[in-house]
Amino acid sequence: MTQMEEARKGNITPEMEEVARKENLDIQMLIRGIANGRIVIPSNINRESSPCGIGENLSTKINANIGSSSKMEDIELEVDKALAAVEYGADAVMDLSTGPMLRDVRKAVLEAVDVPVGTVPIYEAGVEAFMSDGAVVDMDEDDMFRAIENQARDGVDFMTVHSGITLETVERAQRSGRIMGIVSRGGAFLAAWIMQNQEENPLYSNYEYLLEVAYEYDVTLSLGDGLRPGCLADASDIPQISELLTLAELVERARDADVQCMVEGPGHMPLDQIAANMKIQKEVCDGAPFYVLGPIVTDMAPGYDHISAAIGGAVAAMNGADFLCYVTPAEHLAIPGVQDVIEGVIASRIAAQAADAARKLPGAWDSELEMADARRSFDWDKQFKLAFDSKKPYEYRMQCPIEDSEMCSMCGEYCALRILREDR
Amino acid sequence: MTQMEEARKGNITPEMEEVARKENLDIQMLIRGIANGRIVIPSNINRESSPCGIGENLSTKINANIGSSSKMEDIELEVDKALAAVEYGADAVMDLSTGPMLRDVRKAVLEAVDVPVGTVPIYEAGVEAFMSDGAVVDMDEDDMFRAIENQARDGVDFMTVHSGITLETVERAQRSGRIMGIVSRGGAFLAAWIMQNQEENPLYSNYEYLLEVAYEYDVTLSLGDGLRPGCLADASDIPQISELLTLAELVERARDADVQCMVEGPGHMPLDQIAANMKIQKEVCDGAPFYVLGPIVTDMAPGYDHISAAIGGAVAAMNGADFLCYVTPAEHLAIPGVQDVIEGVIASRIAAQAADAARKLPGAWDSELEMADARRSFDWDKQFKLAFDSKKPYEYRMQCPIEDSEMCSMCGEYCALRILREDR
Repeated sequence: MTQMEEARKGNITPEMEEVARKENLDIQMLIRGIANGRIVIPSNINRESSPCGIGENLSTKINANIGSSSKMEDIELEVDKALAAVEYGADAVMDLSTGPMLRDVRKAVLEAVDVPVGTVPIYEAGVEAFMSDGAVVDMDEDDMFRAIENQARDGVDFMTVHSGITLETVERAQRSGRIMGIVSRGGAFLAAWIMQNQEENPLYSNYEYLLEVAYEYDVTLSLGDGLRPGCLADASDIPQISELLTLAELVERARDADVQCMVEGPGHMPLDQIAANMKIQKEVCDGAPFYVLGPIVTDMAPGYDHISAAIGGAVAAMNGADFLCYVTPAEHLAIPGVQDVIEGVIASRIAAQAADAARKLPGAWDSELEMADARRSFDWDKQFKLAFDSKKPYEYRMQCPIEDSEMCSMCGEYCALRILREDR
Repeated sequence: MTQMEEARKGNITPEMEEVARKENLDIQMLIRGIANGRIVIPSNINRESSPCGIGENLSTKINANIGSSSKMEDIELEVDKALAAVEYGADAVMDLSTGPMLRDVRKAVLEAVDVPVGTVPIYEAGVEAFMSDGAVVDMDEDDMFRAIENQARDGVDFMTVHSGITLETVERAQRSGRIMGIVSRGGAFLAAWIMQNQEENPLYSNYEYLLEVAYEYDVTLSLGDGLRPGCLADASDIPQISELLTLAELVERARDADVQCMVEGPGHMPLDQIAANMKIQKEVCDGAPFYVLGPIVTDMAPGYDHISAAIGGAVAAMNGADFLCYVTPAEHLAIPGVQDVIEGVIASRIAAQAADAARKLPGAWDSELEMADARRSFDWDKQFKLAFDSKKPYEYRMQCPIEDSEMCSMCGEYCALRILREDR
């Protein structure tokens, strides 16, 4: 049985208990959220993981993408990236490997981390077709579903499926005058397949079968936004919103089948459109958990896209997004290394924390109070301990060591807190 | 005559012409903005600088703070920081030096850069008192005004004056139950002085004289928010808003004296309060340019406060802030080095650009279109050229060199753009 089915029957699973405890949330409220599809706990029945709830009334979660490519494949490195992501606070990891040994990477990552692990199975189908026949579009329907079944059996907790890429939405995208076209990798695989074969996307036409597999293993479906905008000017356009409507219908069908699902969202988007997009998604998808990539609010700073994404992510999460996919400084340029992963995770945590503090979630707000107290009392060790990254601030302080704990190299004797403390 | 007086007489100064050209703005619209105090051009009559307009309908500007401290004083380093800030796109630089040689730093910085330079003259008065008598609070009214006059004569273009710190607002702050009290350095100098001497702040009681000096040299006053919140829980409290009301009255008096002025704002603030704060400031201060420090939207990531500030700054600028003071990764920990300055400037530019693109300002929007076009056509050199930092993205691409320009190490052959291009 899936967590959703259990919730609908009023059963409390160990995963629910754990999530309620972590979130300090009433268990009945959690059960209602899972039963009506507004909360998911991605937790494949074939894998032990530390349960993580995503959705309404819960703290904002963050995901870190790792994975090899055909240009850079090193299983150990990918495991290191996954471990670093979790160490610095990622709530979930997606393995997006597309190198020839992608199955081995997946197995190693599933083994190495205890957080929920997600994948995009269409990559496996596309890469295998590319390696044997020479073109991604040569994959057939069986290849696609075989990848999904294999990965479900392996224990993957959530899967991006681009079921919203259809003959109709692809045609709409083509006549839309978009600048960037389709920038989602999985979306491009399927759009190219649809155009090549002039057939409907099997993940859409055979969605019922997909639901059966997801149900069997309690894989949480993450309905991919293959038509997400790839630059600011493409945001909130007809293809994007058209696909969202299809995803909303697919949410309903997943819920009818007791299958947990989330909806994926943008992307690249002007800052002023983010709140409206979150609101529309939440309304048309009846409160389904929203999983956004960024959004990136400017493309002018390659090398710093983690910052551009933190701005969009914070505003998204404050306005309803439940799950933020991190962006690393390497985005749009290269496959990220371990340090990039760490910086991406921290930027994303800042965004999530900014939103959760604004939402006055007790955990997030209390941390802010604790940090303020540590700062007021010049308790540096406590500040470092509470910090998302304990090492970097410590190193800053040590750059110019000062014996007097009631000052730093910025203000020295002229510290505002110190001056007024002396005066008290 | 000040720029404001010229504008009120309908005269077009070379500075106005230059700003209108840079902003691609109708000169009459600019003149109206300067005449009614909604736009300033900080430009001391004793100094040649590249004119920069700040305020209504203009692009969002960013300021980089540099300056020595008693713990780290190196004139050459401060000049290097100022030059790096300008090289990476700072529109203005403030020299906040508090080391014993602060006058020399100021002169060197005024000499080295061509952007408007700001200062906080109370530092000079406080530091001199500290060095000769042993306590900041031993400065007297003459010391304060002497520092202001000296700096105006030196050519400082804009000055932070904490005239809103008064007997009344300090008392309000004391009984408010704030966690962090006063975290503004200049604000603390004056609050301590007020409490020690039980006298009104000379920058408030003798504001008319301050206006005379500002008028004589056309120094733009930046009315400091000495009571800005120092943690999220202190935001939008009685002391902060109370001081803002005083500043609003001082704006009116500055305008009556033909003196250009801006208003400074927070600080540390939950993300959901930023838009409301911008709106209130703009209303009570009748559209005076708003100059915000951050705002930082979480304190949980020391070492990454440039990211926390970029989130707040973007939302502030989208909602009316005109001038963003950058925050570096060293904030709250140490005096920043050159690399910190660069990272702070870029984070702040990202925030400003995100806001200006959302506002659909032609310059900002066109850059986004150009970048999208460069990305779509795999024109890497153009992407690097357009980027806020050209070096870092280039280095990322070179980490794993790929001969085929139509791919990068992230997706290799499976690049979404490439797959669909092949298919076209």
